[in-house]
Amino acid sequence: MRLRGGATFGGDEIAIAAGPCGVESREQLDTAARAVAAAGANVLRGGAYKPRTSPYSFQGLGEDALKMLRESGDRYGLGVVTEVMDPRDVERVAQYADMLQIGTRNMQNFPLLREVGAMRIPVLLKRGLSATVQEWLLAAEYVLLGGNDNVVLCERGVRSFDQATRNLLDISVVPLLEEMTHLPVIVDPSHAMGIARLVPPIAVASLAAGAHGLLIEVHPDPANALSDGAQSLDCAAFERLMRRLEPVAAFTGRRLPKRYPASPVSDDSAASPDSAVRSSKRGVKLA
Amino acid sequence: MRLRGGATFGGDEIAIAAGPCGVESREQLDTAARAVAAAGANVLRGGAYKPRTSPYSFQGLGEDALKMLRESGDRYGLGVVTEVMDPRDVERVAQYADMLQIGTRNMQNFPLLREVGAMRIPVLLKRGLSATVQEWLLAAEYVLLGGNDNVVLCERGVRSFDQATRNLLDISVVPLLEEMTHLPVIVDPSHAMGIARLVPPIAVASLAAGAHGLLIEVHPDPANALSDGAQSLDCAAFERLMRRLEPVAAFTGRRLPKRYPASPVSDDSAASPDSAVRSSKRGVKLA
Amino acid sequence: MRLRGGATFGGDEIAIAAGPCGVESREQLDTAARAVAAAGANVLRGGAYKPRTSPYSFQGLGEDALKMLRESGDRYGLGVVTEVMDPRDVERVAQYADMLQIGTRNMQNFPLLREVGAMRIPVLLKRGLSATVQEWLLAAEYVLLGGNDNVVLCERGVRSFDQATRNLLDISVVPLLEEMTHLPVIVDPSHAMGIARLVPPIAVASLAAGAHGLLIEVHPDPANALSDGAQSLDCAAFERLMRRLEPVAAFTGRRLPKRYPASPVSDDSAASPDSAVRSSKRGVKLA
Amino acid sequence: MRLRGGATFGGDEIAIAAGPCGVESREQLDTAARAVAAAGANVLRGGAYKPRTSPYSFQGLGEDALKMLRESGDRYGLGVVTEVMDPRDVERVAQYADMLQIGTRNMQNFPLLREVGAMRIPVLLKRGLSATVQEWLLAAEYVLLGGNDNVVLCERGVRSFDQATRNLLDISVVPLLEEMTHLPVIVDPSHAMGIARLVPPIAVASLAAGAHGLLIEVHPDPANALSDGAQSLDCAAFERLMRRLEPVAAFTGRRLPKRYPASPVSDDSAASPDSAVRSSKRGVKLA
Repeated sequence: MRLRGGATFGGDEIAIAAGPCGVESREQLDTAARAVAAAGANVLRGGAYKPRTSPYSFQGLGEDALKMLRESGDRYGLGVVTEVMDPRDVERVAQYADMLQIGTRNMQNFPLLREVGAMRIPVLLKRGLSATVQEWLLAAEYVLLGGNDNVVLCERGVRSFDQATRNLLDISVVPLLEEMTHLPVIVDPSHAMGIARLVPPIAVASLAAGAHGLLIEVHPDPANALSDGAQSLDCAAFERLMRRLEPVAAFTGRRLPKRYPASPVSDDSAASPDSAVRSSKRGVKLA
Repeated sequence: MRLRGGATFGGDEIAIAAGPCGVESREQLDTAARAVAAAGANVLRGGAYKPRTSPYSFQGLGEDALKMLRESGDRYGLGVVTEVMDPRDVERVAQYADMLQIGTRNMQNFPLLREVGAMRIPVLLKRGLSATVQEWLLAAEYVLLGGNDNVVLCERGVRSFDQATRNLLDISVVPLLEEMTHLPVIVDPSHAMGIARLVPPIAVASLAAGAHGLLIEVHPDPANALSDGAQSLDCAAFERLMRRLEPVAAFTGRRLPKRYPASPVSDDSAASPDSAVRSSKRGVKLA
Repeated sequence: MRLRGGATFGGDEIAIAAGPCGVESREQLDTAARAVAAAGANVLRGGAYKPRTSPYSFQGLGEDALKMLRESGDRYGLGVVTEVMDPRDVERVAQYADMLQIGTRNMQNFPLLREVGAMRIPVLLKRGLSATVQEWLLAAEYVLLGGNDNVVLCERGVRSFDQATRNLLDISVVPLLEEMTHLPVIVDPSHAMGIARLVPPIAVASLAAGAHGLLIEVHPDPANALSDGAQSLDCAAFERLMRRLEPVAAFTGRRLPKRYPASPVSDDSAASPDSAVRSSKRGVKLA
Repeated sequence: MRLRGGATFGGDEIAIAAGPCGVESREQLDTAARAVAAAGANVLRGGAYKPRTSPYSFQGLGEDALKMLRESGDRYGLGVVTEVMDPRDVERVAQYADMLQIGTRNMQNFPLLREVGAMRIPVLLKRGLSATVQEWLLAAEYVLLGGNDNVVLCERGVRSFDQATRNLLDISVVPLLEEMTHLPVIVDPSHAMGIARLVPPIAVASLAAGAHGLLIEVHPDPANALSDGAQSLDCAAFERLMRRLEPVAAFTGRRLPKRYPASPVSDDSAASPDSAVRSSKRGVKLA
């Protein structure tokens, strides 16, 4: 499956979706987007509509955030994935995003699944908080049944009795799903761990287990994030992680996405050969 | 809190909501409704829109089922509670029902919670499959924040490692919530157990623990039910359960609803439901 | 099954085992024993060998505590149940106790199970922290296979994802086990809840569900207990609980044990425990 | 930490413990031992005393199995790890084994922990079925407190709500424990998965996450194993796994143990195990 922006899921190139938990401002998002693109991510993640346990927590910037995501995604040659919670928002979100995320709390929100199943845009289906593998696949079936076969599964940890990490990453699903379904599987170590310094080794392990991609929370200033700061990498840590992933990708016979772009010049000029290629190979796939 | 139909939640009279998992036909529903009313239930439950793990399972009869629920509820002086899954359906369901059920899979469906929070109709908020008590109360907060303070909490068992019962009933929440919130708490032993013969003792225990009501699945022919047959009581078993509950209610200082109707005459009144029932003692509480 | 001291498990009379988590001193234990006997308990519980998560926590007084348990049990006509953790201690503990408790951490300590299976003293087998019902029954089978068929099962809550209570009481096992085994089932609401004020309503619910008995932590001074103070009832609260249980017992067709002593005279008999008590109605049932 | 046989835990060389779940016969064990040594394992695992959920399942060959383990271990230059369940068996098992395994059901068997804590032989402490990381470390503390600081932690999966795999491997503990304790951590993918074909990718992921070693079930004929056949690799699959692990070990900056023997000559030495092997490069490290 290939997104606008060029990212593929399920092929030889690993998909790396990175960005802030929530879109907080144009500057925050753009800084993160530039950094993750430069480090080699090929998809920008960021929440516009935030499902929050408490109604008193930051709820997201809504459509404004969608616009920012689109702009930053285009600017840095990144596909855009963002969560949609409400079936009434699906069309609007799809205007801006390249991939619709169904969050863990909505894995069995069947009207929402049917709605994204009626679209032809890729769907990232996160595993429910305590969903069995069987239930997860049947949730995917709601989307597939609508005719939308661009579903990517995302393991993000399940609820457990221990509070040592935020959730309990079920890494076994990576090889298990490989023999149960044709759908690509990626891993979100950020939500699984809830602790930034555990994200890199678990990201490494996930790729080693065969995951087709990663979803990583990156924030320019985690200490001041409006949500999920404790589990967000800062831009430098993400850059280090990407370097650390290179030999793992090689070991699994896959490759990481190319970095965007090699030189800062290319922001301004499409004449640069490097960016020209980018704008053909990855850029033209946008919009 | 008082429903149309006269049922109250949180007071001296226990609320007994009973009926089939899914509305399958007018006859099935009406038979169940008549039986549960005669046995002393004061709310009719039944699913019109069914959240099913598999898209290939029976999905409910939709608005047709809503009409049947309203008719049978009116005929037997029962309030009507039914699940709404889609924020776009809230107004329609509220036209027919006296209480909107938010199912376990939607406990953190925040757009849906906001939508029912904007209504002024009672809401039955089931606990999420693996929701903490804290998360459950914060989900209720989404409804309350919208100005709808008619929220009833329903414990229905949580997910566990054992498969001996369908879910693991957390009976401790009954006394625990009593000191954490003003909201009434009822128990659904049917979904908790998943096994019909365990429903009566657990219903007894739930009232003994202080629950304000029960939600019980009753089907005229459980063996041929389209959903949840294994956990549904037949009409006779429900009648026996209601008798068994009487001393328990007395012990807790509460009382069960009166049976409908007081005199056997009114069985005939089913022929002209709109007039007869409305003038009954309980019917007059209907809108 | 009948203990020395006269308590029965599985019959018309409910077994009420009460006492401190750990035996801390002769005075603490005797005060508790006198109070629980006066309130109607018929078994004294108390830990001599304490299984503690940390090696730095209070580990119990060992054989000294066993002697105190025997003395206080005899003095107030109570059977004695206490935990044994080490197969090498089984004979010694059996010299003092009337019932051997296998704790939750040792439910699958097979050498220990075989050792108590070789004895002819009743065994109280607590459910493991996350044991399935199947595993629990198979653990009992280790004891039964040794020829000791005096096994009582004790539900004490299982581990869950929520921390609102210490464990998650699985009340469904009470009716479930009734159809799976001939073994009596009692409930320990103290360890299940971990919060003293939740113990009474859950004790009530447990009897209402059909439990053959209760295991309740009672401490003369919970605030200064060396272990489990937060979940221990003080003597007055236990007395209130016993009164509250009377109508529940009646409702289930069972009865509570008689209070000790039958006549107020016997309060004085505490002065000469060794003689007076043995001649009491219940004392004569001791070996 | 270095075992007799030369295996180290916690250093640059990864420890690979492999062998059958239970020792079933001299031939079965020796075939497995030769194969795993040839493939590069440096520790032989095998159960002599088997903790089985049912008393009617194969319980192990006891001391006979211990002798076989010692012989096969010596023959192929392998250290020997085997489980001890009973504090009364600790000395006997220690006569034969190089490392004592405390199984998952005994993680909080405190008398047993104290007993192995009084020894000076390495201990492999498996995580309890639903033990928190905190409880696991405190169980280790029981051993350390006795003066035995040769403790290795083994993650083997925890109990979960899903039955898709036998347990839920908590890979996060590998990096998490690295910052909480100095104790080495190894992973048992066999018990975690319960499905042989999932063992290799999870073994890979575990090393990639930083595990200091692996514990792998290998049986010459899994289809006819008396226990755990479904999760056991056959000898050829184990050989393939070891090759697959090489680049992962390299990637983490560690190395796998050398294969036994270095030269094909020693294949013949199997005929005279007691003399020849001891003089081999690895044999000399034996006591």
